[in-house]
Amino acid sequence: MVEMLSSLRVVLVNTTHPGNIGGVARAMKNMGISRLVLVQPRDFPADAAFARAAGATDILDQALVVETLDEALVGCQLVVGASARGRHIPWPVVDPRQLAEQVASVFSAAVEPLPQVALVFGREDRGLTNDELHRCHRHVHIPSNPEFSSLNLAAAVQVICYELRMAALAVQKEQGQSPQAEPHWGTAWDIESASSDELERLFSHMEKVMTDIEFLDPENPRQLMTRLRRLYLRSHLDRVEVSILRGILTATEKVVKKQERNDV
Amino acid sequence: MVEMLSSLRVVLVNTTHPGNIGGVARAMKNMGISRLVLVQPRDFPADAAFARAAGATDILDQALVVETLDEALVGCQLVVGASARGRHIPWPVVDPRQLAEQVASVFSAAVEPLPQVALVFGREDRGLTNDELHRCHRHVHIPSNPEFSSLNLAAAVQVICYELRMAALAVQKEQGQSPQAEPHWGTAWDIESASSDELERLFSHMEKVMTDIEFLDPENPRQLMTRLRRLYLRSHLDRVEVSILRGILTATEKVVKKQERNDV
Repeated sequence: MVEMLSSLRVVLVNTTHPGNIGGVARAMKNMGISRLVLVQPRDFPADAAFARAAGATDILDQALVVETLDEALVGCQLVVGASARGRHIPWPVVDPRQLAEQVASVFSAAVEPLPQVALVFGREDRGLTNDELHRCHRHVHIPSNPEFSSLNLAAAVQVICYELRMAALAVQKEQGQSPQAEPHWGTAWDIESASSDELERLFSHMEKVMTDIEFLDPENPRQLMTRLRRLYLRSHLDRVEVSILRGILTATEKVVKKQERNDV
Repeated sequence: MVEMLSSLRVVLVNTTHPGNIGGVARAMKNMGISRLVLVQPRDFPADAAFARAAGATDILDQALVVETLDEALVGCQLVVGASARGRHIPWPVVDPRQLAEQVASVFSAAVEPLPQVALVFGREDRGLTNDELHRCHRHVHIPSNPEFSSLNLAAAVQVICYELRMAALAVQKEQGQSPQAEPHWGTAWDIESASSDELERLFSHMEKVMTDIEFLDPENPRQLMTRLRRLYLRSHLDRVEVSILRGILTATEKVVKKQERNDV
């Protein structure tokens, strides 16, 4: 299951303290995970990052620095956001162990090319914004002490990467005994999962058509798109499903255009 | 199982960097563990410790500073030493999960007074000496990347305390104790699930509108409705989501009717 760990990327959004980036790199490398993506870090590269990384400076050297979360998530089939409790719209939330089990079962059933998984962590003081959290298929919450719940960034990455490593090792062990791993959905899925950028194009298209048919009022969007995102993200759409949904949207647009032409 | 967590003490031997002591205090408090014992710390109390502890300064204030490991272990029935691999005399070694299970089972069987458990961590660079390791009933080893195995001290404490907390929460759940102040985040959805008949009405409506917009050909339906059913059924739609989808279908129908009227 080395391939499972190598398909994971850790994405840090707007990290303030470079020391934490170094601590994250060390935690990742200790757990055998090496791909780090930094979205607008406040101070990187920085000496403090390299100091805290101890021997994990290779991870910092190879870290990808990008401007937007979109860029960080390109090609990812599963996006998991680290979250505190109590967001106003509930989203599917797992603890790190449940997450690791789910990721392991996705990989057990996967065929080449392997799915790409992003673990997204927010700012030290405020975590991820609601918009960022709504980009995620699932949220992961470490069941911490409710009276003192906020873990240090590197500590949170450590716990989650530890669970993923434990799951990868468990699968490896199982596979030593029975080569046939339990697939995720009762049977191996027939079609590749949609990537994060394909999903974003779907949501943009959806938002446009919802406006066209006057179901969405851009002046007063309420929570429509959030609810639709949550629905489709948690369903883990495959590529055929995305193209069906895109097809429905296009067919609807045609009707709208025909009606508009007639109106003129 | 609060009593399990409160019967644990973390013992740090000869810690060099006070920042690590602060990081350990924060990791402990995040996991609901509060008793810290320091054996000959090189620099404590120190500002760096309080800075890294964030809001866990109470743990530092109450930390016991002692001269010898013996003093740190007074009254302990179970002593567990953090260990790297490959000591010359094999000792019982567990991973953090096995350790947590063992500790939980000790507490499940325990009567008052509750057993005291010490988790002993060595120096940042060299860990525990052989003599110190031989004071331990068991060793705990985090299954890290063999090519980069040494975790930061606070990260190691974080992982082990996390496993102990997970085990304590699992026992609490088994015992049917109300997970007080530990709500089932995320699993408590805000809205009731849609019923089977509501879903069937949704699918009928969907099939009609797919035909209206000429996305579904009744003469040659292929697998469109099957794929849409699979998608929405696996999402476990709630009632608001069903009414959103019904609303989208109705808005689409209106556009179709308007266009048809214009055509006539």
